[in-house]
Amino acid sequence: MASLAERAVVWQDDKLILLDQRKLPHQIQFIECTSVQQVIAAIRHMVVRGAPAIGVTAAYGVVLAARTCFTRAPDGWKACIQAHLQALRHARPTAVNLSWAISRMREVITTTNENGDPEAVLLSAARAIHRTEVRANKALGEHGAELISNNSIVLTHCNAGALATAGHGTALGVIRSAYRQNKITGVYANETRPWFQGSRLTAWELLQDNVPVTLICDSAAASLMRRQKLAWVIVGADRIASNGDVANKIGTYSLAVMAHQHNVNFMVAAATSSIDMEIENGDEIEIEERPHNEITHYQQHSFAPEDARVWNPVFDVTPAPLVTALVTEKGVIGKPTRSRIKALMRS
Amino acid sequence: MASLAERAVVWQDDKLILLDQRKLPHQIQFIECTSVQQVIAAIRHMVVRGAPAIGVTAAYGVVLAARTCFTRAPDGWKACIQAHLQALRHARPTAVNLSWAISRMREVITTTNENGDPEAVLLSAARAIHRTEVRANKALGEHGAELISNNSIVLTHCNAGALATAGHGTALGVIRSAYRQNKITGVYANETRPWFQGSRLTAWELLQDNVPVTLICDSAAASLMRRQKLAWVIVGADRIASNGDVANKIGTYSLAVMAHQHNVNFMVAAATSSIDMEIENGDEIEIEERPHNEITHYQQHSFAPEDARVWNPVFDVTPAPLVTALVTEKGVIGKPTRSRIKALMRS
Repeated sequence: MASLAERAVVWQDDKLILLDQRKLPHQIQFIECTSVQQVIAAIRHMVVRGAPAIGVTAAYGVVLAARTCFTRAPDGWKACIQAHLQALRHARPTAVNLSWAISRMREVITTTNENGDPEAVLLSAARAIHRTEVRANKALGEHGAELISNNSIVLTHCNAGALATAGHGTALGVIRSAYRQNKITGVYANETRPWFQGSRLTAWELLQDNVPVTLICDSAAASLMRRQKLAWVIVGADRIASNGDVANKIGTYSLAVMAHQHNVNFMVAAATSSIDMEIENGDEIEIEERPHNEITHYQQHSFAPEDARVWNPVFDVTPAPLVTALVTEKGVIGKPTRSRIKALMRS
Repeated sequence: MASLAERAVVWQDDKLILLDQRKLPHQIQFIECTSVQQVIAAIRHMVVRGAPAIGVTAAYGVVLAARTCFTRAPDGWKACIQAHLQALRHARPTAVNLSWAISRMREVITTTNENGDPEAVLLSAARAIHRTEVRANKALGEHGAELISNNSIVLTHCNAGALATAGHGTALGVIRSAYRQNKITGVYANETRPWFQGSRLTAWELLQDNVPVTLICDSAAASLMRRQKLAWVIVGADRIASNGDVANKIGTYSLAVMAHQHNVNFMVAAATSSIDMEIENGDEIEIEERPHNEITHYQQHSFAPEDARVWNPVFDVTPAPLVTALVTEKGVIGKPTRSRIKALMRS
């Protein structure tokens, strides 16, 4: 039986069913999507978040777009679907998995017969993307756990768990595997401002699996490193450039610098679907800026003056040299470089 | 006319009147203290916060304690007041200004005649502490501003403003002075988890003075430093050890490391009342840990699972070598060391 977190993205009864991650941890509420517009809104408003989960969700969104187009124009659904693919692709800018999934689905569309209902073949393709993602997560979880020694204390940031990956989790997949192997004696989670993914999602997800977790403010991570010996900081990725630079949740970059400063290993756990071979380095990654009220409000309660300006970039870029290990389903790269990543992708 | 922020701690009509900083920025509410117990509660529950403001508040608290003791036991008020001094001193552990102010008041008590009402003489001593603090702030504000070049962008953390200092402000005093001199083109403020002093207090205080301010998440400071050239990070201090190590709001240490990493100057602005010559270094500073709900709740709303553990240290220690300049009312020390601090304190 899949856990609640593993049911964050489910295709069932001809619909896409999403666990509303905005309502966690205190409300378990599902949203049903029967149109691509609903899927785009769900991605944009963070009903579903986490790069791999966004990719899988978008793939199912293409199925719904095809259904609408085929109903409206059985002979012209391929022309009709193009605008939907574009809109889906731009629902959020930073996660590469989104455009990766759309590209995969586009390939399937190209080879699909225009005469006839495309839903079955596209659904099968979306399911394959989903299955592959979960399988990759499970494999990389095991690879990552191998790097962890006994009696390790680890720290994670944001939520790179089952919720974020439509299945098993990258950073949390590694932590779960290592915890089951009795290697981990303590898990700390940054609360992760502004959206509190750490407090709301990671703590919830780990506790569902009976992994005890201690929450800290993002700004307390450095004190934690001074106070006790952490073995690893373990994070996921929203996009990895071909040179190994890593875009991930805001705060990852300073964590990596602090880890380096305190001789703590820094692990990036991500499926190869998060690696973007088309960009040279992290400077080319578009960093999403989200609404101001994520910083100035909690729900409808404001705690900042009305006329305060806000800068709310929700991702940052960690330079490759700060990464001790990049863990993927295809294996582990120590100290990622362009040539090592190229070799991995070809393997 | 004093600004609202400058009226955070006021003795008036035989009472101590505190601006309730928990209610800012949307409610302006004052709390009247007529007993030392009320003063202790106000310090503990952060009606008033900021090391210098806590010190001044405690000095007025001694006046109220003396009044109660003299009323109860006109001949034995000196014995009666000892327990109150102890309780005041332990209202919060990290700010040295608290014990500094209590020690000052204790000296006055020692030299005061036991026969007769001590209120007037103690009130005069408390007012002197208050006046000295504000004067020191104004002087250090000018010293700090001298270090700032034209067209500077600065970043501050927490609130080291008038609210925190019962008067003018240390870090914000420097920023105000430099802004008036047209040297500053941008002020960023970290929101400062978990208590949001940046969003709630610093943004409010600067906007009251028409200084535009941009809020960021604490974890975005590193991205800001990569994105644009900051001239200075400017912070206050809750306690400075005799070697120059600085205890300040959680997050200060990583800010200092990131500033160093990005060639940004790091200024600590504090009156000499925040320097504790009795401790060798930062390891000796007690770091307060505050309640878990500061991290897991916003007001009464919980956003973390009930069974998540929490570690909530609210200060950290920045090693002296990361400090570019220590700015006090007695002058500026570049790269603070034990011998330079000793010389400054003797000057």
